[in-house]
Amino acid sequence: MKLITYQTRNLQTRLGALVDGYAVDIERLGAAAGVGLPDNMLDFIDASPVALQRTRELLDRHAGKWPLNVATPVANVRLLAPIPRPRKNIFGIGLNYVEHVAESARNLDTAKDLPKQPVVFSKPPTAVIGPGDAIGHNAQVTQQLDWEVELAVVIGSTCRRTGQEEAMDKVFGYTVLNDISARDCRRAGQWIFSKGQDTYAPMGPCIVTADEVPDPHNLNLWLKVNGQVKQNSNTRHLLFKIPALIADISSAITLEPGDIIATGTPAGVGAGMDPQEWLWPGDVVELGVESIGELRNPVVAV
Amino acid sequence: MKLITYQTRNLQTRLGALVDGYAVDIERLGAAAGVGLPDNMLDFIDASPVALQRTRELLDRHAGKWPLNVATPVANVRLLAPIPRPRKNIFGIGLNYVEHVAESARNLDTAKDLPKQPVVFSKPPTAVIGPGDAIGHNAQVTQQLDWEVELAVVIGSTCRRTGQEEAMDKVFGYTVLNDISARDCRRAGQWIFSKGQDTYAPMGPCIVTADEVPDPHNLNLWLKVNGQVKQNSNTRHLLFKIPALIADISSAITLEPGDIIATGTPAGVGAGMDPQEWLWPGDVVELGVESIGELRNPVVAV
Repeated sequence: MKLITYQTRNLQTRLGALVDGYAVDIERLGAAAGVGLPDNMLDFIDASPVALQRTRELLDRHAGKWPLNVATPVANVRLLAPIPRPRKNIFGIGLNYVEHVAESARNLDTAKDLPKQPVVFSKPPTAVIGPGDAIGHNAQVTQQLDWEVELAVVIGSTCRRTGQEEAMDKVFGYTVLNDISARDCRRAGQWIFSKGQDTYAPMGPCIVTADEVPDPHNLNLWLKVNGQVKQNSNTRHLLFKIPALIADISSAITLEPGDIIATGTPAGVGAGMDPQEWLWPGDVVELGVESIGELRNPVVAV
Repeated sequence: MKLITYQTRNLQTRLGALVDGYAVDIERLGAAAGVGLPDNMLDFIDASPVALQRTRELLDRHAGKWPLNVATPVANVRLLAPIPRPRKNIFGIGLNYVEHVAESARNLDTAKDLPKQPVVFSKPPTAVIGPGDAIGHNAQVTQQLDWEVELAVVIGSTCRRTGQEEAMDKVFGYTVLNDISARDCRRAGQWIFSKGQDTYAPMGPCIVTADEVPDPHNLNLWLKVNGQVKQNSNTRHLLFKIPALIADISSAITLEPGDIIATGTPAGVGAGMDPQEWLWPGDVVELGVESIGELRNPVVAV
């Protein structure tokens, strides 16, 4: 199932399933059938797998013949980030593709050797924006704004010291995240000010539930700036794969339903170019992960 | 006013004012007077300064003669962290006392020079524990568990590009935070795995509202392990003072009501000792900040 959070023309924020070009309002779909279903993504994740199973049954039952006021052409709604306000920081993973480790070592202050353990960092929930929203370019703060396409994992149930063998059962689904980074805003090596600024986490356009992504470690991912391909790789090149990331973080930090792990970016970031390239107001960033979806965000002076 | 979050004997979590050894239930105090007041700290901060003013009036009016079921001897309740579940990551500031910069450079991998800008890092909301709660010692993950007493600032209203001159008006109050750190858990220099583990943010015992702390830059702070003084300094030695921290973070990251900034720790951490000292199961950490309060947490194997 492709799940979306969207805003209606009267500015209500709703939870939907994306079906054949329609945003199907999940709570209303349930109400029309006398079935209680959540009206926002985090409650839906909390209530899954029951909520997911019920929704699937109702979608199958109606199969395109929607009750009144339940389905809206997706062109008529505004997509928001699927989780517009995460409950805690997003976890990011640095240096998780071999060639990106090399380009970072050449051009940033990171080590040449492959990391022995996942390099975990965080982005605050205030960084999240949705499809089409503007990435802010604040010239007072940065002259080195960079892009990073990533597959993001959405946790479905609480992980505490979760073993690798059970980790994939804890995954609710997947989305796309652009780990925007101001390379000149690192502080004593710390990345949160560099990667955690407002608008630095474009996310979406949907969450694809785990059952529809049989192999998340074999998905093409790509990023373009103003139509030019900058990144183009495949998640099979991830150094630490999803079970390893969940096992590692949850060995010490509890992961909760709705938590997001951005799994890292492949080679092709602006800092790795010769000469280096950065984002500027007027640029447009498009990115996507196969089977999940695509994002498009303009860069705007703020 | 000293504000607390506490658990009653029937396990309800309540918001209180600490008055002459009593936990005064703020929502019930209001209800007895026909005045609506919040029942938890984050809603109270959102509703301040109105909620704060109303509460102050009611406390003054009753002055120790409490309505039925409003006041409980504080010895009969369990204090929780004043904000048991922050809405986003806690912001920490590294290397913000001169002598701590020196001891860190000697014993960790940080630079000898004073930082030119605040070194911002983060701790997830899942790290928070309250007075008396156990700091977890997980021997699978760390053999270098360390302490850091800090004055923590609680934001009262939204800060976006807030100037230093207006920053103190945005402060709701102050609390005490122990920035527990597993020194051997840094990853490519990143601190979140080192400082963000479950139980690594003991906080409390209360929030003292800003009006009762006329000069937060002149407060003694100290920390003891098993009764022995390890840290003993004063917030006048802060390199970046509170207005500078708020202005700096909010230049790029929106600070919201209830957000917490831990302002950094003075010299005397375990990593700085010769030989180095670490926390082990059975140890007890006591710490305090003048005019704010004291915390006591045992270290327990987990």
